[in-house]
Amino acid sequence: MEKIKVGIVGLGRLGKEYAKNLIYRIPSADLIAACSISGEELEFARTELEIPHLFEDFDEMLQLQDLEAVFVISSTNKHAEHIVKALEAGLHVYSEKPLSSSVEACKQVEAIAAQYPDQLAVVGFVRRFDPSYRYAKQKVDEGAIGKPYLVRSQTIDKDTVAEWQIQYVKNSGGIFHDYNVHDIDLARWFLGAEVESVWSIGGAYKYPAFAEAGDADHVMSTCRFDNGAMAVLNAGRTAMVGHDTYTEIVGTLGTLRIGRPATINRVELYDQHGARQECVETFWDRFEEAFLRIAEDFLACIQEGRQPALSLADARQATIVAEACTRSFQKGEIVKVGEVT
Amino acid sequence: MEKIKVGIVGLGRLGKEYAKNLIYRIPSADLIAACSISGEELEFARTELEIPHLFEDFDEMLQLQDLEAVFVISSTNKHAEHIVKALEAGLHVYSEKPLSSSVEACKQVEAIAAQYPDQLAVVGFVRRFDPSYRYAKQKVDEGAIGKPYLVRSQTIDKDTVAEWQIQYVKNSGGIFHDYNVHDIDLARWFLGAEVESVWSIGGAYKYPAFAEAGDADHVMSTCRFDNGAMAVLNAGRTAMVGHDTYTEIVGTLGTLRIGRPATINRVELYDQHGARQECVETFWDRFEEAFLRIAEDFLACIQEGRQPALSLADARQATIVAEACTRSFQKGEIVKVGEVT
Amino acid sequence: MEKIKVGIVGLGRLGKEYAKNLIYRIPSADLIAACSISGEELEFARTELEIPHLFEDFDEMLQLQDLEAVFVISSTNKHAEHIVKALEAGLHVYSEKPLSSSVEACKQVEAIAAQYPDQLAVVGFVRRFDPSYRYAKQKVDEGAIGKPYLVRSQTIDKDTVAEWQIQYVKNSGGIFHDYNVHDIDLARWFLGAEVESVWSIGGAYKYPAFAEAGDADHVMSTCRFDNGAMAVLNAGRTAMVGHDTYTEIVGTLGTLRIGRPATINRVELYDQHGARQECVETFWDRFEEAFLRIAEDFLACIQEGRQPALSLADARQATIVAEACTRSFQKGEIVKVGEVT
Amino acid sequence: MEKIKVGIVGLGRLGKEYAKNLIYRIPSADLIAACSISGEELEFARTELEIPHLFEDFDEMLQLQDLEAVFVISSTNKHAEHIVKALEAGLHVYSEKPLSSSVEACKQVEAIAAQYPDQLAVVGFVRRFDPSYRYAKQKVDEGAIGKPYLVRSQTIDKDTVAEWQIQYVKNSGGIFHDYNVHDIDLARWFLGAEVESVWSIGGAYKYPAFAEAGDADHVMSTCRFDNGAMAVLNAGRTAMVGHDTYTEIVGTLGTLRIGRPATINRVELYDQHGARQECVETFWDRFEEAFLRIAEDFLACIQEGRQPALSLADARQATIVAEACTRSFQKGEIVKVGEVT
Repeated sequence: MEKIKVGIVGLGRLGKEYAKNLIYRIPSADLIAACSISGEELEFARTELEIPHLFEDFDEMLQLQDLEAVFVISSTNKHAEHIVKALEAGLHVYSEKPLSSSVEACKQVEAIAAQYPDQLAVVGFVRRFDPSYRYAKQKVDEGAIGKPYLVRSQTIDKDTVAEWQIQYVKNSGGIFHDYNVHDIDLARWFLGAEVESVWSIGGAYKYPAFAEAGDADHVMSTCRFDNGAMAVLNAGRTAMVGHDTYTEIVGTLGTLRIGRPATINRVELYDQHGARQECVETFWDRFEEAFLRIAEDFLACIQEGRQPALSLADARQATIVAEACTRSFQKGEIVKVGEVT
Repeated sequence: MEKIKVGIVGLGRLGKEYAKNLIYRIPSADLIAACSISGEELEFARTELEIPHLFEDFDEMLQLQDLEAVFVISSTNKHAEHIVKALEAGLHVYSEKPLSSSVEACKQVEAIAAQYPDQLAVVGFVRRFDPSYRYAKQKVDEGAIGKPYLVRSQTIDKDTVAEWQIQYVKNSGGIFHDYNVHDIDLARWFLGAEVESVWSIGGAYKYPAFAEAGDADHVMSTCRFDNGAMAVLNAGRTAMVGHDTYTEIVGTLGTLRIGRPATINRVELYDQHGARQECVETFWDRFEEAFLRIAEDFLACIQEGRQPALSLADARQATIVAEACTRSFQKGEIVKVGEVT
Repeated sequence: MEKIKVGIVGLGRLGKEYAKNLIYRIPSADLIAACSISGEELEFARTELEIPHLFEDFDEMLQLQDLEAVFVISSTNKHAEHIVKALEAGLHVYSEKPLSSSVEACKQVEAIAAQYPDQLAVVGFVRRFDPSYRYAKQKVDEGAIGKPYLVRSQTIDKDTVAEWQIQYVKNSGGIFHDYNVHDIDLARWFLGAEVESVWSIGGAYKYPAFAEAGDADHVMSTCRFDNGAMAVLNAGRTAMVGHDTYTEIVGTLGTLRIGRPATINRVELYDQHGARQECVETFWDRFEEAFLRIAEDFLACIQEGRQPALSLADARQATIVAEACTRSFQKGEIVKVGEVT
Repeated sequence: MEKIKVGIVGLGRLGKEYAKNLIYRIPSADLIAACSISGEELEFARTELEIPHLFEDFDEMLQLQDLEAVFVISSTNKHAEHIVKALEAGLHVYSEKPLSSSVEACKQVEAIAAQYPDQLAVVGFVRRFDPSYRYAKQKVDEGAIGKPYLVRSQTIDKDTVAEWQIQYVKNSGGIFHDYNVHDIDLARWFLGAEVESVWSIGGAYKYPAFAEAGDADHVMSTCRFDNGAMAVLNAGRTAMVGHDTYTEIVGTLGTLRIGRPATINRVELYDQHGARQECVETFWDRFEEAFLRIAEDFLACIQEGRQPALSLADARQATIVAEACTRSFQKGEIVKVGEVT
């Protein structure tokens, strides 16, 4: 089958990994173009990745002959703009999450995308493509745990990222938009229902600088769904063990747990510290394969002319709930999701 | 050392186990009397346990010469009355939890107990005496996980108890008073703070009969503490794996998990169902040793003239928070604990 | 039921624990006498345990009026003599393992015991009374793993005991007699067959002093049974994680693993060392409950006039195989067990 | 970098997987040719894999212009011949294990390969390329467990393969050559020493047909190494839990365990069967990534002009020890490895 000609915008840490997957691990992709506002990133693209067409300006890249699809791995506040421009240029587009931390922006992107029904527009909730999460979803769909009614899910970074996150938090939309969108998406996916109301609490338990920035280093959101189901979602920045991200689904006939502890590999040590397993450092270490699979799936959808399972509506809903959590956290009250939309 | 002459009121399933511990496994106890309104229970006490003095009337038992302490293992709605009478009869008294599901009753018992400062009055939050919980508390106190700021704790019975619980729920005070008082007590113990406000949600996800009785088969309470710390407490009646009760404590330097899965023993099976461990059936199977240790400790406190770590104030606080959870569940709103007291 | 009047010989570390079980935790026992050649041990018996009758001379203790049973917890090289004397004095006798490291001595004790068919004589292979081992045996007997054909079992002490063991090894009969007798007994128990030939290898991998004493710090014995089944038994003195003792049974329909890792309790830590569980320090920490149960069972057998499951023949067979292992280790050849008997 | 033009011989189940890796997942490979004696396999290569050049005759494929390297995934008894022919045709060659079950043949291949020092000749002991095994090796090399002195390693297939293996065993060289070569290679790798003598026992415990074919369904080999270290290696065909393959390395300062249980993924189930994890079905499920990595590494060695870590000498040593095990199993005696060479 013909390879798909792909461009990428954003070659920060995550963008570089996407680019390497597209070049080295996904035969259906031909990464012909990259765009970045950073000279260092473009230099890396030229010398290390040998990408033929490089751009400082996103609009210029979109005019490149033959380009078929764009991966938007730029900073969060640019996602919506880049998606819209790519669609308007006649391209398929894949964007890193979140779509936007503005509910209004999400809706605008959705409306524009509706005008280009033959072009794919996907926001990458990668965990749905992690083999363990997929397996769990299949088990749930097969009825292995009966009817699911409770999801516990958390996204907790290793402590070592805190210092960097304190700088980054200003542009990230805050911990609910940046971290918990994943957990919100998973809860919706597993429960097959929409969040109705939330109560979010938390604080800067270890690093007061997060409080000064209007954010937190650990938050917990309780969600009530429109079918009566429940979720409790945690996000944090202070785990010592590693990237401590997992999900549990409780149903009437059983419980599924995915990924706790987030061990690096299959090695156990028996030494003076006890019987132990070491854990992954970062979300990339944990979800490396999921990032590969989601990009493969996006390209396969283009090739096969099928719709991806993830829609912009999923991305919009995650943003709405994240916004409800943010407001609840700020006000100290239950927030009805209906008020946010 | 002299044995302590002990009486017991209530010889239901749990009362029988207390009696057997006092007879066979606690050398410092001399169980000389038992009281029950059930002929079958008294017959068991006479023929199986060979307890010398048997009573249908609690007041009569209290007049028994030489009696020094009473174990109140009667039905929940009798605890407060039996504690007060035992105190007024000059005896030390140990009561099963909860003290009462009425906050008012808790306070009355506390006030009366204050008039008998030389007599012990203890409500049995047994989990504090489970070896794993004690070990975890010691670790926390030593600073192993830094400052704790989040507790997750749950009390979930095996599905097989549901049918019986449907009958029992009318007299139990409901799932928050009957199940979550343990988790409330543990959260207070580990966090060293008091609950300020709660939001409780849940439903009868598997057995609608619980909803008809004004109760639920799974509930989840989010708690905000007066020092900013958090807890999320679950209670349920539908676990298939066994009695699925555990606690997790998250601190600034690490996390402790106690007792999940609640394996029966140290045996693992590798067979067509996978690599697996079987789990305990009931709370007794899980906390058998804790029930022994707490009774031993109560008697040791009497012998050594020291105060037990658990006070009636602990029991009262647990009831207050359970009552706040109950009201929140009924109203669908956040309830401030201050409103309950 | 009447308490059984019991004496004990040997109040070293293990003897003290037996005595405490008999006094504080086994209501059917009345520990009226103790014997030791150590002044310190007798002083402990008088002041801490308040045992009424104390003896320096074992023969004198045996003449004590009313004595019904003796626990032999003396040094290994005294077990056989003490058992015989107790039997000749008309008493029931329980002895710590091994019966003797001399096959000849084992047979002599058996022959003498046969003359006293109304008196019990038991050697304490405690692991058979550990709740997890009992559960596993029941599973095997129920056919849960089909026909068992392979046992892996090991007894490995924490490194911290090595220094002390170097002194002790001269009197212990060596690592096969001292450590592996347990594993040999378990392999016979689970496989229901007798060892036919063995090959034992090993060395002093960490502490050369064991080699100088003609012993080892890690040995491994491969056993072929008379029904074709297999076992591999390890013993060691250098584990860092704790007392690393476990058993695995492989059958035609599944595998059972008992007790690895040998965790202290149900607490897990998530910290900079990974997701981990701490392990027991000593065999006592691991098998404390088994030591209690085996003593209870011995006394119950006396009271109920039934034979214990463990016979002197079991003890003799364990010694025979341990001796075959010792010879194989020394000669570097396969040794047929038939040559040892 | 230029892609390497590759051919493959053998497109059975494993050959198909190698081919797919070379086509879809390894950008440095250009799979231009395939050879098979099976019409069905060639048809698959044409229609499913679209490999341009297809051959029934291996010699013809070797004459294909531009071919640079050959993957030998033919039946075990053809490996040696195919390796030699590929070398003589001037090609680099990678072969599935074992090199041969004949020690003589191994030595002949080694001698011939020595005449082509500029061409790579590698036998694929894939486990060395499994991420967990690599991590463990690195830990050992860093001294994390001190000096390793004991390896336990096993290769046990799921029961479901037994029926097929009964047919296949006649051509496989037997269970030691077919299964345990992996474990032998790993033991040599981790211990850094050579096997000096072995004792192998076992039987057809579940499927008598293996005994009739002169083979077994579970075997266990005890190995003594020339530096005094030990290994115990198991191989079997009857596991119910899945492909139950793992390795443990014991050193003076700690123990490493790799891959037990061999879980499918990170999902745990809590249901009526207990707290459990499902396990992989086949060695491919377990070592899929290792098969990818070893092929990548072979091609990278060609591109970078470096020698692979695995040598034909490693393959020859594995065959020698497997042969010693086979003889020991047949004779019922210890076999010195020196006698085999």
